[in-house]
Amino acid sequence: MLARYFPILEWGRTYNRSVLTSDLMAAVIVTIMLIPQSLAYALLAGLPPVVGLYASIMPLVLYAIFGTSRTLAVGPVAVVSLMTASAAGAVAAQGTAEYLEAAITLAMLSGVMLAILGLLRAGFLANLLSHPVISGFITASGILIATSQLKHILGIRAGGDNWPDMLGSLAAAIGETNVWTLAIGIPATLFLFWVRKGAKPALQKMGLPPRAADMTAKAGPVVAVVLTIIAVIAFDLGEKGVNLVGAIPQGLPPFAMPSTDLSLIEQLWVPALLISIIGFVESVSVAQTLAAKRRQRIAPDQELIGLGASNIASAFSGGYPVTGGFARSVVNFDAGAETPAAGAFTAVGIALASLFLTPLLFSLPIATLAATIIVAVLSLVDLRTPGQLWRYSKADFAAHIATIGITLVAGVELGVIAGVGVGLLLYLWRASRPHAAIVGRVPETEHFRNVERHKVFTVPHVLSIRIDEALTYLNARWLEEYVLERVAERPELRHVILMCSAVNEIDASGLESLEAINHRLGDSGVGLHLSEVKGPVMDRLKRTHFLEELNGKVFLSQDRAFAEVSKDDGTPPPPVDHYLARGMI
Amino acid sequence: MLARYFPILEWGRTYNRSVLTSDLMAAVIVTIMLIPQSLAYALLAGLPPVVGLYASIMPLVLYAIFGTSRTLAVGPVAVVSLMTASAAGAVAAQGTAEYLEAAITLAMLSGVMLAILGLLRAGFLANLLSHPVISGFITASGILIATSQLKHILGIRAGGDNWPDMLGSLAAAIGETNVWTLAIGIPATLFLFWVRKGAKPALQKMGLPPRAADMTAKAGPVVAVVLTIIAVIAFDLGEKGVNLVGAIPQGLPPFAMPSTDLSLIEQLWVPALLISIIGFVESVSVAQTLAAKRRQRIAPDQELIGLGASNIASAFSGGYPVTGGFARSVVNFDAGAETPAAGAFTAVGIALASLFLTPLLFSLPIATLAATIIVAVLSLVDLRTPGQLWRYSKADFAAHIATIGITLVAGVELGVIAGVGVGLLLYLWRASRPHAAIVGRVPETEHFRNVERHKVFTVPHVLSIRIDEALTYLNARWLEEYVLERVAERPELRHVILMCSAVNEIDASGLESLEAINHRLGDSGVGLHLSEVKGPVMDRLKRTHFLEELNGKVFLSQDRAFAEVSKDDGTPPPPVDHYLARGMI
Repeated sequence: MLARYFPILEWGRTYNRSVLTSDLMAAVIVTIMLIPQSLAYALLAGLPPVVGLYASIMPLVLYAIFGTSRTLAVGPVAVVSLMTASAAGAVAAQGTAEYLEAAITLAMLSGVMLAILGLLRAGFLANLLSHPVISGFITASGILIATSQLKHILGIRAGGDNWPDMLGSLAAAIGETNVWTLAIGIPATLFLFWVRKGAKPALQKMGLPPRAADMTAKAGPVVAVVLTIIAVIAFDLGEKGVNLVGAIPQGLPPFAMPSTDLSLIEQLWVPALLISIIGFVESVSVAQTLAAKRRQRIAPDQELIGLGASNIASAFSGGYPVTGGFARSVVNFDAGAETPAAGAFTAVGIALASLFLTPLLFSLPIATLAATIIVAVLSLVDLRTPGQLWRYSKADFAAHIATIGITLVAGVELGVIAGVGVGLLLYLWRASRPHAAIVGRVPETEHFRNVERHKVFTVPHVLSIRIDEALTYLNARWLEEYVLERVAERPELRHVILMCSAVNEIDASGLESLEAINHRLGDSGVGLHLSEVKGPVMDRLKRTHFLEELNGKVFLSQDRAFAEVSKDDGTPPPPVDHYLARGMI
Repeated sequence: MLARYFPILEWGRTYNRSVLTSDLMAAVIVTIMLIPQSLAYALLAGLPPVVGLYASIMPLVLYAIFGTSRTLAVGPVAVVSLMTASAAGAVAAQGTAEYLEAAITLAMLSGVMLAILGLLRAGFLANLLSHPVISGFITASGILIATSQLKHILGIRAGGDNWPDMLGSLAAAIGETNVWTLAIGIPATLFLFWVRKGAKPALQKMGLPPRAADMTAKAGPVVAVVLTIIAVIAFDLGEKGVNLVGAIPQGLPPFAMPSTDLSLIEQLWVPALLISIIGFVESVSVAQTLAAKRRQRIAPDQELIGLGASNIASAFSGGYPVTGGFARSVVNFDAGAETPAAGAFTAVGIALASLFLTPLLFSLPIATLAATIIVAVLSLVDLRTPGQLWRYSKADFAAHIATIGITLVAGVELGVIAGVGVGLLLYLWRASRPHAAIVGRVPETEHFRNVERHKVFTVPHVLSIRIDEALTYLNARWLEEYVLERVAERPELRHVILMCSAVNEIDASGLESLEAINHRLGDSGVGLHLSEVKGPVMDRLKRTHFLEELNGKVFLSQDRAFAEVSKDDGTPPPPVDHYLARGMI
């Protein structure tokens, strides 16, 4: 029981020296990767670079205690940084103390929400985000993020919360481009693109074994950082208008207090909820993918608690919202991490960096960080999905395109909400029109099939309807309309049989519809029968008066129901020679 | 096509003298019933009584043109009047011109929304209100309405938007009760209760035939109106502090302009949407019940257009939101109305009343109208439903009670929203955990049943899972977890068969989950097979790369799948004498 809420108690028990070695090894590699990433994502979130480092220390330690994934690496990620910038930017101006306070408060709110959802075991809420909505949102976020960083590559001032504004603002200021900044930014971007695609083969050609080549290639951003710092110092680019990271406070994360100002919380709770859900979905997808490769399991509800604890820790140590990141988790996994302790060791690595390395980063050009971000997020932009969705499902395509469009034009928050809304509407639309078929008996069998697809036997005064869906409030109205329309079309009708073999549930609204159908059919002299009702559904029906009031019978099989009610055609039985002439007696 | 949007073109063609007589007869009876009701509901909505008459003229004419129910009687109803009071009261004080303007604007907004939903064929949105939520909402509204009218029976001033406030306000002012008002209010209430329950049997005893007795009893409120007017005049009660209706402007409805003030529209659109949906659901339920009795049909999407037109007409003629009412529609039906023309004739009746009858209503006590409302709405309060729901479905019970509680404590708007929210959450929770079963072969048959319920044959290296639900984004995550957990539990596993006989659909998220399961099982050396995939589902899968990448096969039947993959247990086939010894060759 305790181990359920503290997974560390489980893996901690079997921790040994060989696992320690693997975890330490992975931690070193992830630390090297995480330093430039943390600085860059803090920049994207509109925060001082050091906040990115703070957000990469305590959250990792807390996740090691509460998280269930063995290899997930937690910290600042691109999409959540963009969402933080959008939410904090709505309440304060970048660079002010209020802006930082808003970011810290977002982490706190998001952490508390995640933890509460976890304790309520409400991880299913993440289901509201369908794959097409998530991938649309991530594609649009990638485009927004890359566009937002262009100003740093060009060395100009520009703004905008949505794509049209961003492009307009860039176009207006492009004349003020700083060539020195461009001379750093463009090579850095090209180099990082090459690192992503071409570095591994090149290193292998130079004789490195594949795994070592892969790990070395991951250090590409660090190489870009070092080279551009050298360039800045060598050519004194700081004096020539190239924006630099500048002085980063040296030391461990401070103790920070999230705001308890209710009006701020009122403004931030919606974005915090969206950040929580997007962060959770992203993180769980990564964790599940990695866990499955080693036949391990993660517990999604406990993941909520783990991410919640991480975000609360981030808030109290001056950081901003964090979640499990894709690229760094894969690196952690590939580098051989075996337990969440690797994350805790990474935290130590980052803490050492923020104690001792920060003075070295004074001359780091902002353009280098922007290049890191651009190269990282452009891999999020997925241009093949729309075509695939169009071929597979028009409804999913609509949700995907709506999410991309609204995210680009109206920003990340409305984008997520609209995606969830469109997805739900399309789902409810389909759920409110479930599949049902009029069935008849396949000759010489006991099987009943759709009259439109098979040659089957029916009689005019009996209507057999197979319902291929649970009867819930979403389709209760449809059921009434469907049955009563079919009945209205056929004045000769005397019996309706509802074949319930695929009805897994009947909720109170479904029951009321059945009662209404029963009464209405009764009013017009038509019997209502049920066949093949499932055991658990029947148990519940027995607790109501429905079966007593039923204007017909419940049959165990559709065949029995059809056989019995088709005898009653309301006419007197034919004389015996009718049967004799047909060879039936 | 034209007849779809103008149902009058259909029934109008066969209109004849006998139908005319029936419709006229029904119109007279409904008119007599509607006059006191219209005045009373306007009072409930916080509006001058004459507005109730205005809302009972043009809307009826428009519904006769656009509506599809032959017998629905449109006009002011209790619940919508309460919602109007709540929405208009939030933007202006009762009795001001702004309050009336808000009510007119609500009718306009609601009409436009209904019409747009109808043109979009979006009537399925009404499905969001489950029966337990609607009945909870109506019960709570009945309690709120009855409580709000007590002040008129007592002759005191009291207020409050929610139940605790109303009760507190009544308790504070009860010392100021006007005994003359009470002397009108209590007998009127008792008389109307008796009319509802005992008048029909009493009239029958006096020798009236049952139908005539029933119709006469419906005129009970008119009797109460006449008697209390006489009492007021006889004892000069107006001078003794009894509140009277007073001067009602004589004449036809004025031409009114709804407000085009954007800030007002911004404040009113949410309540207008809720009024639209509640009104539509109430109206459609009544219309369907009555249509079914005569084997007629209504078209819900066209009903939206009909109610939309009625509300727009109400707005332009100085009325407030209207919808189809239960009691008056039943009277209309029982009185023999055959076409919507009966509604148009009723409109003429009400128009004549507002031209000539209004001076007679000067001395009508408000307490009589309050008594009419109390007696009408207490029949809405349904105390048996909670118990029935508790026995039948705890989830539906929770939605019902939450709706009642929140409506009473936080008012009608939050009540509806919370009801829809709770209903959706519970639905999504269930939808995200669909039913699935591990199945095995029933010995000596080709049937596969749940291993937990039947004695069936399985082999350790094959896992057959039957999924009893469409694979959509709501359960895509569940599917991955369910399959991968089962696989993680059984290290000896070599094959998984998903039996898809009940999978009616696979959306893009479901497909991605299948792909993920396929890759993950592939990574751990387990084959993934599908069996009994339905035709339309298979057609769509063929448009993707899934079948090429599938790490296994698709089988037509579960039996074939099981037979083929259970051969492959990863060990070399046993020698022939193994089979000989078991009598298998």
